[in-house]
Amino acid sequence: MSLKSNEFIKSIKAYKAGKSRQSFINNSDKIIKLCSNENPYGSPIKNKNIETILQYAHEYPDIENSNLIEKLSQTFSIDKENLIIGNGSDEILQIAALGYLNKNTSVISSKHSFSQYKFISQLRESPYIEIPLTNHYEHDLEKIAQTCQETPKSCVCLALPNNPTGTSVSAENLEKFLSKIPKTTLIILDGAYNEFDQRTDKPIIPNYLKKYPNILYLQTFSKAYGLAGFRIGYGIASKEIISNLKKVKQPFNVNSLALKAAEIALEDDIFIKKTLANNHLEKQNMYKELAELNIQIIPSHANFICLNLKENAYKITSKLEEKGIIIRHLQSFGLPNYIRVSIGLAKQNQYFITKLKEIYLEK
Amino acid sequence: MSLKSNEFIKSIKAYKAGKSRQSFINNSDKIIKLCSNENPYGSPIKNKNIETILQYAHEYPDIENSNLIEKLSQTFSIDKENLIIGNGSDEILQIAALGYLNKNTSVISSKHSFSQYKFISQLRESPYIEIPLTNHYEHDLEKIAQTCQETPKSCVCLALPNNPTGTSVSAENLEKFLSKIPKTTLIILDGAYNEFDQRTDKPIIPNYLKKYPNILYLQTFSKAYGLAGFRIGYGIASKEIISNLKKVKQPFNVNSLALKAAEIALEDDIFIKKTLANNHLEKQNMYKELAELNIQIIPSHANFICLNLKENAYKITSKLEEKGIIIRHLQSFGLPNYIRVSIGLAKQNQYFITKLKEIYLEK
Repeated sequence: MSLKSNEFIKSIKAYKAGKSRQSFINNSDKIIKLCSNENPYGSPIKNKNIETILQYAHEYPDIENSNLIEKLSQTFSIDKENLIIGNGSDEILQIAALGYLNKNTSVISSKHSFSQYKFISQLRESPYIEIPLTNHYEHDLEKIAQTCQETPKSCVCLALPNNPTGTSVSAENLEKFLSKIPKTTLIILDGAYNEFDQRTDKPIIPNYLKKYPNILYLQTFSKAYGLAGFRIGYGIASKEIISNLKKVKQPFNVNSLALKAAEIALEDDIFIKKTLANNHLEKQNMYKELAELNIQIIPSHANFICLNLKENAYKITSKLEEKGIIIRHLQSFGLPNYIRVSIGLAKQNQYFITKLKEIYLEK
Repeated sequence: MSLKSNEFIKSIKAYKAGKSRQSFINNSDKIIKLCSNENPYGSPIKNKNIETILQYAHEYPDIENSNLIEKLSQTFSIDKENLIIGNGSDEILQIAALGYLNKNTSVISSKHSFSQYKFISQLRESPYIEIPLTNHYEHDLEKIAQTCQETPKSCVCLALPNNPTGTSVSAENLEKFLSKIPKTTLIILDGAYNEFDQRTDKPIIPNYLKKYPNILYLQTFSKAYGLAGFRIGYGIASKEIISNLKKVKQPFNVNSLALKAAEIALEDDIFIKKTLANNHLEKQNMYKELAELNIQIIPSHANFICLNLKENAYKITSKLEEKGIIIRHLQSFGLPNYIRVSIGLAKQNQYFITKLKEIYLEK
């Protein structure tokens, strides 16, 4: 007899992340990284911003996260008790799983979406139900709602916009969807890419919380705000949900520097405006260039584009890497013929297009 | 019908941390914080150390934590596969709970110890068994071993030195203890305060891993290394345990700045030597001063002293706070007559003693 882990661990596959800069030993500084949907403008944090925080780095972070909670509460005009800060929104997903999932709760999500939704179901030994996307690579809201209704206890995870397709839903369609979901279902709406969505009819999730107290809305500072390395995100939900999540989280889950960085990022209007404007402009340019190459794309409301290469994309991914560009092969998302390319700076995008052209010409 | 959380949440009480500097609105910079066993010398990290890391703060951390893992593997002469990095050692405790605890695993620990051991048992709905300390405030190793033997499936959590008593065990007694523990028991040895323990016969835990592959040894950078605000710790265990823990952890659980800071801290021999020498010297001074005040203390192998005030310590704690000193009332540890005081800088300790004298004279 020896020490045995919990059985469910055997079903978990290691997370497949976009390749890191560090995995390239030579010239890692010159790598163009378009695989993790990070902000190509960098982060809005300057050395001087965190000098004061560094002075107190030997002390535990403020356990209440008071300053950032205060700022977010003002930003969204919601009470502080409706907010929780996480070590990335990933952690809030995990906390939600601890608090609300068990063997009798089915986790329902779209096929071809963020892998962490399946992961949290595995952590809790909850059945996982994948609903295929529509023909337009969109969430099949009707089918998802119907599945919820037919399932005794469920939790829905919906990325808006969806990762890796970049598609999303309109406010009208989301409302229709929400009205059909049982009140006993935890509805996790993941807004990691929300800022990039510039549609006039996009849903503003915090507005739905009063009517639907079973929503947990996740947001991150890792994408538009450029703070992926700091690890910080937040959740917005009813006071009851937040109070439960706080009970299961680690007391000092977020580091002091991240708390300060998030405050600074929230205040830096110029940085975020530049980020969004650049993303919009460069995405249009990419559409044009890819159309000229006759490559089929999925129109995106995020800071990335999903390309259908109509053959297994493994080779092209490798060839791009040889040329110093990391993009994301979507094999692990169940889309082996597709790649996901983050929108970078103009010159990075141009370099990607040039190299992609070269690879196509070599064939 | 409305959304329901998992039942076990109701049993969890919010974590009681030492008061933070931020909770004092006026003069928060002047507060003397002796409640969280932080390093009074600050952190070894200078602004220039993290300049480079800050440049890449918009990118996700290196998912393999390669550089720090490499350095730790050299430091302990163990394989990289025996190491896992956590968002504080707290997170590794939580991950271990996910991987190894369930309703049928009893968590066994000492009464009057770190509250997170009970917390992880609650997270997993595992029975929690508390074994009273000996008359010398030490872990009752015999009773703990016996309880493990009598329990079909168990996990032991042992803080060495113990928090909040500062007591520990000898290498000889630990070996005797380990030999009695069933091979199916996960043995979590928490070395958060290990560096401060200067006994010649203290156990060197990594040496036991080969013989006892069911040990998980936890270490933190929050105490002697002065990085509490960064959130970083690590675990050392068999390759099998580590591989299982990696499967249940969040992919980007540790932030980039913490990874770099830990590397720097590991290399800074002068900082750690100064910290340990100061702690030793100041602890002796404190013993002397407290003896003069006729206050009973528990001899400590850590960077704090536990004082027995022989009456509920609530009032004295409040009075010290009024005078700008935060110490830890041990009510939440089940020791309402006791306080825990971190060893600070000479002038901080002196200030504490002076104010404590004043309070005693006022009585």
